[in-house]
Amino acid sequence: MTIDDPADDEIIVRVEAAPINPSDLGLLLGPADMASLQRATDESSGLTFSVPPQHLRGLQGRLGQSLPVGNEGAGTVVAAGRDASALEGQRVGMIGGAMYADYRRIKARDVIPLPAGASAQDGAAMFVNPLTAQGFVETARTEGHKAIIHTAAASNLGQMLQKLCLAEGIPLINIVRSPEQAELLRAIGATHVLDSKDADFAEALTDAIAETGATIAFDAIGGGTLGGEILAAMERAAVRTATEYNRYGSTTCKQLYIYGMLDTSATTFNRGPIGFQFSISGWLLFPFLQKAGDAVAQRFRARVVDELTTTFASHYTRVIGLAEALDPDVLRAYVRKATGEKFLIDPTKG
Amino acid sequence: MTIDDPADDEIIVRVEAAPINPSDLGLLLGPADMASLQRATDESSGLTFSVPPQHLRGLQGRLGQSLPVGNEGAGTVVAAGRDASALEGQRVGMIGGAMYADYRRIKARDVIPLPAGASAQDGAAMFVNPLTAQGFVETARTEGHKAIIHTAAASNLGQMLQKLCLAEGIPLINIVRSPEQAELLRAIGATHVLDSKDADFAEALTDAIAETGATIAFDAIGGGTLGGEILAAMERAAVRTATEYNRYGSTTCKQLYIYGMLDTSATTFNRGPIGFQFSISGWLLFPFLQKAGDAVAQRFRARVVDELTTTFASHYTRVIGLAEALDPDVLRAYVRKATGEKFLIDPTKG
Repeated sequence: MTIDDPADDEIIVRVEAAPINPSDLGLLLGPADMASLQRATDESSGLTFSVPPQHLRGLQGRLGQSLPVGNEGAGTVVAAGRDASALEGQRVGMIGGAMYADYRRIKARDVIPLPAGASAQDGAAMFVNPLTAQGFVETARTEGHKAIIHTAAASNLGQMLQKLCLAEGIPLINIVRSPEQAELLRAIGATHVLDSKDADFAEALTDAIAETGATIAFDAIGGGTLGGEILAAMERAAVRTATEYNRYGSTTCKQLYIYGMLDTSATTFNRGPIGFQFSISGWLLFPFLQKAGDAVAQRFRARVVDELTTTFASHYTRVIGLAEALDPDVLRAYVRKATGEKFLIDPTKG
Repeated sequence: MTIDDPADDEIIVRVEAAPINPSDLGLLLGPADMASLQRATDESSGLTFSVPPQHLRGLQGRLGQSLPVGNEGAGTVVAAGRDASALEGQRVGMIGGAMYADYRRIKARDVIPLPAGASAQDGAAMFVNPLTAQGFVETARTEGHKAIIHTAAASNLGQMLQKLCLAEGIPLINIVRSPEQAELLRAIGATHVLDSKDADFAEALTDAIAETGATIAFDAIGGGTLGGEILAAMERAAVRTATEYNRYGSTTCKQLYIYGMLDTSATTFNRGPIGFQFSISGWLLFPFLQKAGDAVAQRFRARVVDELTTTFASHYTRVIGLAEALDPDVLRAYVRKATGEKFLIDPTKG
């Protein structure tokens, strides 16, 4: 496989680090049935999976296509077009897909030079999570919310969000699913950490909302009933201070944003306990950035560079090569998306 | 029971007609279990019901209270305060609750004088449905949608919406649940009428959306899977014209507004077939009007008066007195909320 020379506004980067984000797995595996994993029977080192029939219709658009994977990464510029020569030899972070590769040809505007001393690993995940965390805060502020709720809150993204909210003075209610996750967040300064498995979760959540005034939630899970339970808790907190009964529920606007798919099952909510002043919407980084405009995007990027190894530091539990990524045991491990576990691909490992 | 003299800006109206809207039943009966209906054991002519325990928490705010019912109505002004004397003797439509009564004291600004020749029955429902239908069109326009989807579309409200959309040149996709309902809508000029019980409903809905460009739906049902199926059909229609596969779904914004509770069971939707560009929100008339502002509300009201017996005509299948409204058999009949059936209370019947 060869790679074309860079155009005037392009560079060629040797990829040295690329994280495996849940969004990458969504493209790599989609709704494939993990139990059906088999080694390909041809000469390739590939793997094959079956897709359950009910998911096939949604995949019509990608049947028969070979799609490159890897949203973001970092590496060293090994060639540069005329207008990008200042980047030659520099280490950069990149966004744009197709990062699970030895080399990536990319437009200069889609990379950020790393600050002095930063490693490729430091810069590998400087886009998706850092911009998303800032996007959550920006969304909450723009819509006039006073405090935020976050689920699957001990993730790399969740930790960034907690650090950001502390810096910005925005109360954050973290919802996790184990005492270890709660501890991890408390260690970085979280004050509101609730375990959704606790018997008194609903009551504790209502109390935390009443205390902070949270009326917006970002949910990485998507499926099941948790999102609806969060809206119901917001409503209970609102009704506590209401002076008279309203058959349509409180007048407090309650917003749930679903930004992830950790649980791909159906989303279910009861409207009675929520009232009519609610909204459940999808939240995606790129449409958000497009709507927010260039000035906001530039502000976000500058902050990522400034706080790359503090607020926006990512932690990896395992570094693998490209070939290893197709090892069935390794694949099963990174597909688990266990909190605290995060894989990094380093293509220079072969 | 006596009624106070009107203040300077108030009038007293003898109520002659008040419709039974689904929203009235929400206040009158809430989540009461119909099967538990019993005549009260005291001297009153009242009825008692049990409320299933799981719904009790949401009703804390109304326990022990006697709440007046009846959102809107019409009647004749029998007394007027100093600043409202021009209304004396006039027939008016009213909004503001507590209309299931012989007399209603009300602020003059909450009534509209009926045009010459209009009966109390003509003016009984000139607020909730006519303003809601106009609110749907206004919401769709403000948010930039080209066509509208409506469920339970053969209702009085649905018929008004169809007439309005025809007048405004906005394509409307009507979803109904029987051939009779479909016929009723076609008779007033509807061209897109789909029966959700038909085997090819999903495909027909996708086709109708692709043809009209509908990206907003107003759903009176709320519970179950229909809302999610509508969003999935919008997404299928959007993907038909997409040039490349996007793992997050199409970039078409899809909006579902739930404005009713015909099905009080949980709302369930699958996110995979919908993508991330969606929003499911509650829609209520009064918050909408408040946000839209006085100019919009005045425009809506003026149109209702102009088209009271055409676009905004309501049809009643039965007129009952106040005492009859508490007759168990009559109550069971109006609680059914069958399409095409609509009850009117005339307190002058006794």
